[in-house]
Amino acid sequence: MFTLHHQDKNTKARRAALKTSHGEIQTPFFMPVGTNATVKSLSNEDLENIGSQVVLSNTYHLFLRPGMDVIKNAGGLHKFMNWNKPILTDSGGYQVFSLSQFRKITDEGVKFQSHLDGSSHFLTPEDIVSIQGILGSDMMMPLDECAPYPCGEKEAKKAVERTTLWARRSREFFLASPLKGKHLLFGIVQGSNYKNLREQSAKEIVDIGFDGYAIGGVSVGEPIEFMFHAIAQAGPFLPKDKPRYVMGIGLPDQIVKAVGEGIDMFDTCIPTRYGRNGSAFTSRGRLVVRNAEYTSDLRPLDDQCDCYVCQKYSRSYIRHLYNANEITGLYLISYHNVHFYIKLMQRIREAIESDCYDQFQKEFLSCYGSTL
Amino acid sequence: MFTLHHQDKNTKARRAALKTSHGEIQTPFFMPVGTNATVKSLSNEDLENIGSQVVLSNTYHLFLRPGMDVIKNAGGLHKFMNWNKPILTDSGGYQVFSLSQFRKITDEGVKFQSHLDGSSHFLTPEDIVSIQGILGSDMMMPLDECAPYPCGEKEAKKAVERTTLWARRSREFFLASPLKGKHLLFGIVQGSNYKNLREQSAKEIVDIGFDGYAIGGVSVGEPIEFMFHAIAQAGPFLPKDKPRYVMGIGLPDQIVKAVGEGIDMFDTCIPTRYGRNGSAFTSRGRLVVRNAEYTSDLRPLDDQCDCYVCQKYSRSYIRHLYNANEITGLYLISYHNVHFYIKLMQRIREAIESDCYDQFQKEFLSCYGSTL
Repeated sequence: MFTLHHQDKNTKARRAALKTSHGEIQTPFFMPVGTNATVKSLSNEDLENIGSQVVLSNTYHLFLRPGMDVIKNAGGLHKFMNWNKPILTDSGGYQVFSLSQFRKITDEGVKFQSHLDGSSHFLTPEDIVSIQGILGSDMMMPLDECAPYPCGEKEAKKAVERTTLWARRSREFFLASPLKGKHLLFGIVQGSNYKNLREQSAKEIVDIGFDGYAIGGVSVGEPIEFMFHAIAQAGPFLPKDKPRYVMGIGLPDQIVKAVGEGIDMFDTCIPTRYGRNGSAFTSRGRLVVRNAEYTSDLRPLDDQCDCYVCQKYSRSYIRHLYNANEITGLYLISYHNVHFYIKLMQRIREAIESDCYDQFQKEFLSCYGSTL
Repeated sequence: MFTLHHQDKNTKARRAALKTSHGEIQTPFFMPVGTNATVKSLSNEDLENIGSQVVLSNTYHLFLRPGMDVIKNAGGLHKFMNWNKPILTDSGGYQVFSLSQFRKITDEGVKFQSHLDGSSHFLTPEDIVSIQGILGSDMMMPLDECAPYPCGEKEAKKAVERTTLWARRSREFFLASPLKGKHLLFGIVQGSNYKNLREQSAKEIVDIGFDGYAIGGVSVGEPIEFMFHAIAQAGPFLPKDKPRYVMGIGLPDQIVKAVGEGIDMFDTCIPTRYGRNGSAFTSRGRLVVRNAEYTSDLRPLDDQCDCYVCQKYSRSYIRHLYNANEITGLYLISYHNVHFYIKLMQRIREAIESDCYDQFQKEFLSCYGSTL
């Protein structure tokens, strides 16, 4: 299901295709985040126009609202949200730890209170796979324990052990269910910022055997270089014939660097969140379009961009809409930003195919700038 | 510039075309309201897909934000918002009276404080025409005094007299300016709910001579039947060879009835405002999609509707988005609602052309219901 098309000569970057029940995805790829079964402020038509291959949605949020009955009634998440391309759903583990009002974690599973209405829930790793089965996710994530940052080694080790235990139970449940063959189940590597734990976790998770491997426990408030440590620590133990996914990453320059380290899959709510905050991504870095300097600037957000927003609207107009609290303003910036991410991945794929990824990286960063 | 194509045999409804510098508009027509140079939550692409012939924008709001310098710099409102079809702008008179923190009206003009930043402004009727010239409005409205509801006869009479005085100055300024020939200037009839004043105002305004005639001072909190009184009182004095516009109206059944009374033009923020409140207009009346009864309802908002929202999304999904505070939810309802209004006008035009407007009215109201 994962076909390697090309390995870049000078970096670890690779071009591949990942086969799912809703079509093949060209890697490396970016997944816009649709927490509540929609990418914030965009419609599916927008995502199709932009050329998004896939959408990510959040199990925790959908489980609580609208709830499984509603999605089951619609015939699954694809039909519910009318999105016919692949969907990845996370496990909800991260959300349980970061959002719920109360939580108790045992080896058996997680007990938590909804951040919406305080209702109590208990979910096992098997439940999490089962729920994603009802959602009909093409790519499922097993329940894992995401260690906070910072995290002591003992606590991080416990999280690794529990993540492995849950991964094994998830995989066994998955293989014994009708989900097998129709869906992909990923494994998640934990280990915080400890080399030995990242190695241990990667080995144990790979030993169980999954359809793809994610590096979790990043993007939890740690310095960004720790994410690259985690990639460097776990990477050597991940099989080359499976997709690699760094969860919740990142800014454009971070994605460009991570692809060079052999990562295939990314997701982050940054393009839409920054869009709602009035910040546009451009080939020359971030542009805070709400700023006064753009009051009468008739140029597009990015003169290198071919999205319809940049063909049709000026910074002056978009700034006005944003400052007048018009939804259309944050919509236009969000559209442009998601387009920026999707086109960036397209350029990344082309650069790898042409064996010039290192040159692409340099050119991109010299124009865009770097946060690293 | 106003070509009457057909007069319905059994009602006062008429089919005509209104020529503007940005193309011909088929009447009767509805203008979505784009207060801040955008129809709330929609993009211009949406309006084009929906088939809107024209957009209305608010002089008062644009004058204050982004201000005339910004719009002049862009080359006018059409270029600023990238809308190449006709635009009508109101005079701002109504907003000065309803929104500004402080206002003083003299025969010379209006002094007011911005509701945004408290800044003081003084505008004459000539300024108002001039501002709309900078905006480049295809259809301009002169400064008028919109009497509140309820309003004593003496106060209403004073408003009529000042409206006539300002209308004359506006027309004279317009005719002596380069705006003449490129733009249309409408006259506004006031008179509150007084038959004699409506007659007086209509006669005086028509006597000055405008490119079209609006009935103002309605939709200010009065019982809806008063609006039909105003139409009945002023209507006989309005020339048949000019377009007639009732300002700020209304619900679908009210528009259907007003067309039967010979009205050609409508505007209201109802479709987008109701959209943001979770209410959809359908062929069977209003549907409050946020209600619990639609939790698992897989039908479209309106099974009679051919808009893309109704082709693609269920009540269940839209309700979920709305209740999860997702912008996409209110966007989808707003899109559908504006589409409902635009298609209603199309059906109205077809019914008039077929000389069966009275039958159309009956059929529409029996299905939709009536608020009258």
